[in-house]
Amino acid sequence: MAFVPTPVCASLTSRFYGVALTTTRPGTYSAPPAPRGHPAPTAALDPDNTPPKYRGPRSTPLLDSVPFPEDLKRLSFPDLKKLAYELRWETLRAVSATGGHLGASLGVIELTVALHYVFNTPHDRLIWDVSHQAYPHKILTGRRHKMSTLRKSGGLSGFTKRTESPYDPFGAGHSSTSISAGLGMQVARDMAGIPGISVAVIGDGAITGGQAYEALNNAGYLKNRMIVILNDNDQVSLPTGTKTVAGVRPSGALSDYTSRLMSSRPFQDMRGMAKSFSKLFPEEIQDVAAQVDEYTRGIMAQGGTLFEELGFYYVGPIDGHKLDTLVPVLENVRDMPGNKPVLIHVKTEKGKGYPPAEGSLDKYHGVARFDVGTGKQHKSVSQTPSYTSVFAKALIAAAEHDRKVVAITAAMPGGTGLNIFGERFPKRCHDVGIAEQHAVTMAGGMACEGYKPFCCIYSTFLQRGYDQLIHDVSIQKLPVRFILDRAGLVGNDGPTHHGSFDLAYIGCIPNMIIMAPSDECELQNMVATSLAINDSPSVVRYPRGVGVGLDVINQKLGGKYDVMPERGHTLAIGKGRIIRKKAPSPKEGSVAILSLGTRLLESVKAAEALEASAIPVTVADARFMKPLDRNLIRKLANDHEIIITVEEGSIGGFGDHVLHFAVLEGMLDDGKVKFRPMVLPDRYIDHGSQGEQYEEAGLSASHIEATAMRLVGRSTTVLTSERALDLNQMQK
Amino acid sequence: MAFVPTPVCASLTSRFYGVALTTTRPGTYSAPPAPRGHPAPTAALDPDNTPPKYRGPRSTPLLDSVPFPEDLKRLSFPDLKKLAYELRWETLRAVSATGGHLGASLGVIELTVALHYVFNTPHDRLIWDVSHQAYPHKILTGRRHKMSTLRKSGGLSGFTKRTESPYDPFGAGHSSTSISAGLGMQVARDMAGIPGISVAVIGDGAITGGQAYEALNNAGYLKNRMIVILNDNDQVSLPTGTKTVAGVRPSGALSDYTSRLMSSRPFQDMRGMAKSFSKLFPEEIQDVAAQVDEYTRGIMAQGGTLFEELGFYYVGPIDGHKLDTLVPVLENVRDMPGNKPVLIHVKTEKGKGYPPAEGSLDKYHGVARFDVGTGKQHKSVSQTPSYTSVFAKALIAAAEHDRKVVAITAAMPGGTGLNIFGERFPKRCHDVGIAEQHAVTMAGGMACEGYKPFCCIYSTFLQRGYDQLIHDVSIQKLPVRFILDRAGLVGNDGPTHHGSFDLAYIGCIPNMIIMAPSDECELQNMVATSLAINDSPSVVRYPRGVGVGLDVINQKLGGKYDVMPERGHTLAIGKGRIIRKKAPSPKEGSVAILSLGTRLLESVKAAEALEASAIPVTVADARFMKPLDRNLIRKLANDHEIIITVEEGSIGGFGDHVLHFAVLEGMLDDGKVKFRPMVLPDRYIDHGSQGEQYEEAGLSASHIEATAMRLVGRSTTVLTSERALDLNQMQK
Repeated sequence: MAFVPTPVCASLTSRFYGVALTTTRPGTYSAPPAPRGHPAPTAALDPDNTPPKYRGPRSTPLLDSVPFPEDLKRLSFPDLKKLAYELRWETLRAVSATGGHLGASLGVIELTVALHYVFNTPHDRLIWDVSHQAYPHKILTGRRHKMSTLRKSGGLSGFTKRTESPYDPFGAGHSSTSISAGLGMQVARDMAGIPGISVAVIGDGAITGGQAYEALNNAGYLKNRMIVILNDNDQVSLPTGTKTVAGVRPSGALSDYTSRLMSSRPFQDMRGMAKSFSKLFPEEIQDVAAQVDEYTRGIMAQGGTLFEELGFYYVGPIDGHKLDTLVPVLENVRDMPGNKPVLIHVKTEKGKGYPPAEGSLDKYHGVARFDVGTGKQHKSVSQTPSYTSVFAKALIAAAEHDRKVVAITAAMPGGTGLNIFGERFPKRCHDVGIAEQHAVTMAGGMACEGYKPFCCIYSTFLQRGYDQLIHDVSIQKLPVRFILDRAGLVGNDGPTHHGSFDLAYIGCIPNMIIMAPSDECELQNMVATSLAINDSPSVVRYPRGVGVGLDVINQKLGGKYDVMPERGHTLAIGKGRIIRKKAPSPKEGSVAILSLGTRLLESVKAAEALEASAIPVTVADARFMKPLDRNLIRKLANDHEIIITVEEGSIGGFGDHVLHFAVLEGMLDDGKVKFRPMVLPDRYIDHGSQGEQYEEAGLSASHIEATAMRLVGRSTTVLTSERALDLNQMQK
Repeated sequence: MAFVPTPVCASLTSRFYGVALTTTRPGTYSAPPAPRGHPAPTAALDPDNTPPKYRGPRSTPLLDSVPFPEDLKRLSFPDLKKLAYELRWETLRAVSATGGHLGASLGVIELTVALHYVFNTPHDRLIWDVSHQAYPHKILTGRRHKMSTLRKSGGLSGFTKRTESPYDPFGAGHSSTSISAGLGMQVARDMAGIPGISVAVIGDGAITGGQAYEALNNAGYLKNRMIVILNDNDQVSLPTGTKTVAGVRPSGALSDYTSRLMSSRPFQDMRGMAKSFSKLFPEEIQDVAAQVDEYTRGIMAQGGTLFEELGFYYVGPIDGHKLDTLVPVLENVRDMPGNKPVLIHVKTEKGKGYPPAEGSLDKYHGVARFDVGTGKQHKSVSQTPSYTSVFAKALIAAAEHDRKVVAITAAMPGGTGLNIFGERFPKRCHDVGIAEQHAVTMAGGMACEGYKPFCCIYSTFLQRGYDQLIHDVSIQKLPVRFILDRAGLVGNDGPTHHGSFDLAYIGCIPNMIIMAPSDECELQNMVATSLAINDSPSVVRYPRGVGVGLDVINQKLGGKYDVMPERGHTLAIGKGRIIRKKAPSPKEGSVAILSLGTRLLESVKAAEALEASAIPVTVADARFMKPLDRNLIRKLANDHEIIITVEEGSIGGFGDHVLHFAVLEGMLDDGKVKFRPMVLPDRYIDHGSQGEQYEEAGLSASHIEATAMRLVGRSTTVLTSERALDLNQMQK
């Protein structure tokens, strides 16, 4: 466990920094070799033709001298500040070339420097909650040279990851887990008698999650010395639900509370802070407890009672961009005797130090590639609307016709499209904070009163509301509409964010109606259908990204649209549809592809390829996973030799429900039809593009084609694409 | 929605109560017909031979006059108290005949009376968190005559249930959901302009659940008038983890906090309370806000700042057994103007008013049938140990040999057996409160530091930690051992507590090793095996109740034990075993039953019955759901015509994983083997005995037998037992 990285270029550079500022190459400074794939700083700063408005340092001598946190500790205090300056621009440069989560990282530049300066990482455990703010942490912990690979296939993860670095003691992606993990580590090390401290950095959004409270409550009870840093950047709702956007305000009394803390007193300056600390610790620790209580109440923690009541020392609020405050406060807390956890309330600004981010409504929370000098993002403009925006419009259309429609999001108004809905219907739109459990049950409560709640949660985040889905909604058969964006593989965010499991984990639950649209027009129809289902919960799950476009829908997916309809029509519950029919008589050698969701286009492409080889193929769109279209399955089985099911989900989902039904009906008893489920492999697929991921998963058109070819006996050679198909088997 | 029950015997009896106390039948009191199935009170009070030590009223004239809450409102204040007295003894009588959750119900007698007296139920929504304390509520809301059917098949649920009564606006069973549900209802009705108030009653245990905090945070933000009653009975951990048991103390700083609230000030008496209230509300509501803040801080809420910081008015603490305080406080809060939620801190005693319960360590949390006069419970004594106790011993054995073993429970030390473990290893046993999310991630943190955490959570409650299981444990492949007690159907607690889904919802997750023992000795082996698995998370899931006993294990389940071993041995990962082998050559007409879990005995019984009809049957115990024993499945398919999988779980679980593998291997392509998965039906099975439930589910020996008989063509008649088999099909 005790990983000690080799100090690379353990540097004495700091004292020469003054020189470095005036000359490009200080006499005694030996520049490390240019990191692979990392453009020279000056080049990155120069936009094509126009002179850059924003410009960082032309060289980064201090940062060059700090490949690992150990090297930080040799820096003087003034140099620390200069390092922070370099680190901010280095982060900007890196993300400008890759895109990614920028705003949060810019907000913790000084905090990152201070934490690595004060604590003995990786021996002390530094845990970033959510961890999309960990880019500067990555730069400082031996990964600077890989930043150009961020979020790309084979490159650095956009989050902390245990297998990536010993400086990442815990991976994340979802929020509110850091205190639990840090407490577990602290308890374990205390038991083992190993010194070291756990530091969890958690945002004011993440701390609204119930798990954070459970962990605070337990930490306050256990009375061991861990440190929680509340990184308060006034961004409760992500990514675009800021206080000023679209009438959607950040949710939660806790947010009001921390705002009050901020307004009720100025930042603690070092004088006051140091005074309180020095008073805190007389020689005799045993006698201190009562006094500490006094002092924390009277001096340090005025207004921080909420955290104090949960058993923490509260320190703050302090300015998270002032190293002069951050470093001594962290040092004092680190060296404090006693065994009570400490919460340090740090106020930061998202996007800090980069005017385009500071001036933006979303603080450049997540950005495409951009030009550092101008702040202009290279966003690809698609003619085809995203599924998210199609949903938002469909929900608005539904709400305009039915005043009982209400919508709930758990801190994702932008990601779910509810920011658009909220502009139109501010009073019918509820952002409950990062609180999926509460969101689901609250939706249930609204359904009890005759309202028609649309509970809009990413597939991966509904895992947080799973028990509530069962216990509060399904058992009571309440008509809550679950809208699951980001189902299937999600691309750059990687394993923590894949929506791979919903079909399995919801499919096993009684009373659920489960739909997955094959294109954006079908999504409209399914929103209309879920609105009409008022005696049972329902689910619509669809992928991240843009739709397929009307032309493709008309040409390949059975659509007949002149323009995108204003609103969808209701579908018959549990009925699928045939997209292409080529069932010969006799059925030998014929293939049916039964698809659920947006692999339908891949299925059609596979069918086209197979038909070019004179293999007759029927393609069907199941539309519903639950209830299954039994007659459709029977018919496909009657008319074809082979049935391949395709879905963007794990084992235990759609294909296995079809199989289960088929064997109960005896369809497979006589050898007249062969079933093959094609599902996601039973392992996590790393970050990359969605296309790359589905290729790796073995769920592209070529894999479907190859599967069929082999089943009809036209191919025995193992295609390259079948390598991935092998992964489709469950276990090694 | 607006159900108005017919007042039955709207009574003026109260004024004659004095007479009723001295004569058994007051002149003007017309007794309602004796409730069906309910023994006469006096009979119930007389134990067989010995004179009863504890004795309630000989008649219940007031309670008889209050079949529905409307009738309560006619009672005088002194009569209310007498009614509470009758209600307490009626609750005792009812539960003495059925068993059930007693302690919590005895603690809320006065609160129940006061709530129904003050609020206009069911129009006002009264939501009991967890709701095992709702027995007196049931008695007061038209269900008194059915109390003898409590928790029995076809009878009253042990929890609130929407389909049971309009006075149950929200069902429960799991904790911490009531504020979310109540808030949803309040928001909906405020939107609709319908008057009425939501009242959530939540215990000091349930409020440690993260969802409660998420809901408090959101309620404080939304600023609508709902009421939360914190029922503080000093019972954070259930059911036996009280402060005084086995070194296991209630967990959480919040518990310390509420204790401090209690000790820092006396109960609010009515004079002080009324004074503060009367001061609270001048005529002009608009101007009141600031003053209210003043008063709540200065008078009412001294020390209640935690809830205040979350946006609530805090009132209390008040004595929850004094109607003189409860009723006026509730009335005042009900009539308070303003739109801020209110939290009323009520202090109660579990088991209150019944000396055997008060004097018991577990406060008679859950009881078997008992004698009211003596308090003696009719607990059936089994020679066979429960799975829970076998696990506890196995874990102790593991911990004695490996000092890295630690155990975590989420407020269920008694239910999981960790109370026994905690006695032996108090420092290695962590009760984190009702906080499954935190429990799972904390276990992950401990695993990061080289410890071997056993995370012991009921199958149904792990649904609360599902995202953490995926995001924090499985993705990072941390060796957390999940111990899932109460898997499969659980009996009297019913649908909210069934552990039906774990095989499906965990089976779809990569990196998991999943085991299910077929008997108690196998459980020992699997605990040893999970201890040995240190590179991956693992799961052991097993049912509620007692094991099968050594004799049965030796005679039917392939065991060879003289005595129960001290500790188990490690099993080969992913290897099942053959229990009985009767594979003929040729294989036509032969059956293989592949069982996962404790249906193995039913499978063997079915095999015996089938062999009596000369049908050769092989019975195999899969042991592992993940990884599957592929060679075993191949062999069974080679040697038999029919493979029936049996499990105590839903669709999408073991059987479907077997099927998925079988079709990928092409086993079903040629019609030489027929597969049939037998799983729980796709609907919720109501409370009753476990035997009744498995009968209803179609998973008893006779169902397995019938399935096989039909498949080998020996039976075409539809047996009675096959009715349930039909339910095994997924959807209508």
